[in-house]
Amino acid sequence: MKKIDMIVNAPHFFTMEGSGVGYKTGTAMLVDGGKIAGFADSVRVASEYAAEENLLLEHHAVFPGFVDAHMHTGLAIARGLAQDTGNWMMYGLQPFDSVIGQAARDAGSRLAIIEAVRAGTTTVGDYEYEMNEVCSFVQKIGVRGQITQLIREAKRKVYNPGELYEYDPVMGAEAFNRCLALYDRWHGGAGGRIHVLFGPQGADFLSLELLLKIQKAAKEKKTKIHMHVQQGDRETYQIEKRYGKRPIAWLSQVNYLDDSLIAVHLTDAHDEEAAVVARSGAGMIVCPGSIGIIDGIVPPSTAFQEAGGDCALGSDQAPGNNCHNIVNEMKNVALFNKIKYKNPEVMPAWRALRMATVEGARAIGLGDSIGSLEEGKKADFIAIDLRKPTMLPVYTNPMRNIVPNLVYSARGDEVALSAVDGKVIYRDGRVLAVDEEAVVSDLENFAPAIGRDAAEEFWRIHGTNAEFMEKGRL
Amino acid sequence: MKKIDMIVNAPHFFTMEGSGVGYKTGTAMLVDGGKIAGFADSVRVASEYAAEENLLLEHHAVFPGFVDAHMHTGLAIARGLAQDTGNWMMYGLQPFDSVIGQAARDAGSRLAIIEAVRAGTTTVGDYEYEMNEVCSFVQKIGVRGQITQLIREAKRKVYNPGELYEYDPVMGAEAFNRCLALYDRWHGGAGGRIHVLFGPQGADFLSLELLLKIQKAAKEKKTKIHMHVQQGDRETYQIEKRYGKRPIAWLSQVNYLDDSLIAVHLTDAHDEEAAVVARSGAGMIVCPGSIGIIDGIVPPSTAFQEAGGDCALGSDQAPGNNCHNIVNEMKNVALFNKIKYKNPEVMPAWRALRMATVEGARAIGLGDSIGSLEEGKKADFIAIDLRKPTMLPVYTNPMRNIVPNLVYSARGDEVALSAVDGKVIYRDGRVLAVDEEAVVSDLENFAPAIGRDAAEEFWRIHGTNAEFMEKGRL
Repeated sequence: MKKIDMIVNAPHFFTMEGSGVGYKTGTAMLVDGGKIAGFADSVRVASEYAAEENLLLEHHAVFPGFVDAHMHTGLAIARGLAQDTGNWMMYGLQPFDSVIGQAARDAGSRLAIIEAVRAGTTTVGDYEYEMNEVCSFVQKIGVRGQITQLIREAKRKVYNPGELYEYDPVMGAEAFNRCLALYDRWHGGAGGRIHVLFGPQGADFLSLELLLKIQKAAKEKKTKIHMHVQQGDRETYQIEKRYGKRPIAWLSQVNYLDDSLIAVHLTDAHDEEAAVVARSGAGMIVCPGSIGIIDGIVPPSTAFQEAGGDCALGSDQAPGNNCHNIVNEMKNVALFNKIKYKNPEVMPAWRALRMATVEGARAIGLGDSIGSLEEGKKADFIAIDLRKPTMLPVYTNPMRNIVPNLVYSARGDEVALSAVDGKVIYRDGRVLAVDEEAVVSDLENFAPAIGRDAAEEFWRIHGTNAEFMEKGRL
Repeated sequence: MKKIDMIVNAPHFFTMEGSGVGYKTGTAMLVDGGKIAGFADSVRVASEYAAEENLLLEHHAVFPGFVDAHMHTGLAIARGLAQDTGNWMMYGLQPFDSVIGQAARDAGSRLAIIEAVRAGTTTVGDYEYEMNEVCSFVQKIGVRGQITQLIREAKRKVYNPGELYEYDPVMGAEAFNRCLALYDRWHGGAGGRIHVLFGPQGADFLSLELLLKIQKAAKEKKTKIHMHVQQGDRETYQIEKRYGKRPIAWLSQVNYLDDSLIAVHLTDAHDEEAAVVARSGAGMIVCPGSIGIIDGIVPPSTAFQEAGGDCALGSDQAPGNNCHNIVNEMKNVALFNKIKYKNPEVMPAWRALRMATVEGARAIGLGDSIGSLEEGKKADFIAIDLRKPTMLPVYTNPMRNIVPNLVYSARGDEVALSAVDGKVIYRDGRVLAVDEEAVVSDLENFAPAIGRDAAEEFWRIHGTNAEFMEKGRL
């Protein structure tokens, strides 16, 4: 009898190996030392292996844990305060964003990460200014964290229409140094679960000099650059005015497009520009729900993929999505692209699932370690309860309907269990290492003061939601 | 002390009165004789009223129960078997639909209705050939049922491209008689919870003579016609070839558009055609997820509403949606229309919520009795748990974020309680009057035989999903 840490027994495994969904049945997954040690015949496994823990998932399907590659978790403190408006940043978010302190953002992060875990996310791609508390929480809750420290050089001030952003090299250098400090403190931390990425906010927000300095450091430290790319007409305007080219063309010219880059959004990119990014070897992250709500736009992720690129999904932020639920983003990306191309065959369920797992992992540089259930990879997996109404009935012949129902029917609460590095972190509705009630109570304490502090600016700006309040629509 | 049946205490009520969301706080809702008896001050209520039942919903928001106005619940037996394909009916559904017997459809209906209730639906608008078992189940589970018996006159055979459907008056008359029999047996049944509507399948599937006969009977019996209208290019082709006009123009000419009609889908209708239907006084039902998956189309519900019409939401059917979750349809209708019009201000959260409640109720002819929490209306309501991560944090000042988070963030499992006619039918994750485990076990028995019986035709037709099975993508 070989001794191992864990045997995972389930009737269905979707390993995501190969080019499809890698279905296996009649098999059990072996976990040892936090990694997948292989698969064994589900009947013989009991006589061949002695495990510390036997996970018996009798009416479940096992998948790789989901990758939510782009989140601003701290903004969960402002959930639901900024949607349904044009100029989202100024008319929606700004009155609140400007009065939210770091402790409140950290409380938002804790909630958002719990929310994501409850819907099957095992890797969170978080992105903000101050990430130390997020790293501590990632360490505690047991999830995997691709943590990006934001770097910005453009001064925070009100710019006149058409005015170029003014750079403040001292501020830029300070942000970069904080990024390097975060890297030194946390990269490889939490037993290797945390990676620190470098996050120039966007090509318009930093000088070329600082952008290149960041790129050089990222390559030296073998980490990635996680950057908003051609994320809106404001960015396009700034780069055109400054350099005479659209952002992607300019980034290409200065050799910023390569496999060290993870490009987020591409909201304002044409299909051909998306293809340029894909062919450079860069990864992409698309945030369907967020960009749908904020801009009414379906970004060119399909064109990016057709050009050979790997694209991940992201839930972005809660004042304009408004949730951190990758199950919902799979449905969004599939439906939005069917609608964009007026073609029900575009973006089928299996491809959306790959974006949430193996393709998403590749897009953010974790393709060798997570995203599929293969021997030697880290044991990040989830179990979907197939006796929830949304997953029923189960067909296996002549076709399996589990993947389409996960993508199109599931709500998120079908996730019965999640494990990271072979350690169960979520089970039967409870996050195991964290007191969820305490997180919620802590969070609730911040809302009244934020509302009070934001009120004057909210009414002065008088955006769509102010009008809605006056008209009794909220 | 006045004696009443129930006091509902909660910090937030969204009554949907007036033109917005009818927010009330500091109040308790009074229920008596299955109806809303009014509201009372939340502090004084205890000294003024003695209730049989006190519902204390401490961290909840109360809304009218959701209306899911167009469902084919029986097809839940085929969930997930037909998406991601062009010509959905022939290449997706047909191999399975042709081998599913009535007992399996009834099992599917039971599951779909449970699924809908679990996501806050209190009125199901079901539509199929054989509705007796559905009515029995509606009676038992306690939900409200707008039950439509389908009537079809076109022979079921394989038509050559361009061939006009052949009518079979004997078949048509028989279907109409079964519809009248269902009306006699069930209309006003289950304590008034069940209404029977007449369901000509579509203008192309019946002769003008039978269509008019149905219309006359519906008016005499003071019920509604619930009909698929301009639901696709096949229908448009048939009507143009037969009558020389597009379906809506022709229906207008034969006086079929008026307030006795509930028009479903309008998939192939232009904005101006949708406006013609709206101005006639007819209601509309839009099924965003279903039509998005099946056709990649966003139907013109916004144009219909702009012309003054009331539009309800529907979840349609599970082999191409694939769920019965009105929370999801609210998000779909808002996002799809933002994308359609490339404008984030189109279809805001409050309007989507009205479609699921008061506007939806009006669209299907129940505006006087349900859809809002007003004195004299039936006590159909749900409670949303505001301590679920997706609904947090709660802001009330300077704006409330509860409605946007219900529409954009909620998954469906935030529904903590539902009541119909003042009677609680769902609470804390359990449907009260039905053994859910038994429903699931019964349902699971049918799948293997359906799969076996459909296999030959599935492989012969060799649609997209057959290809996906061969390529390991399912």
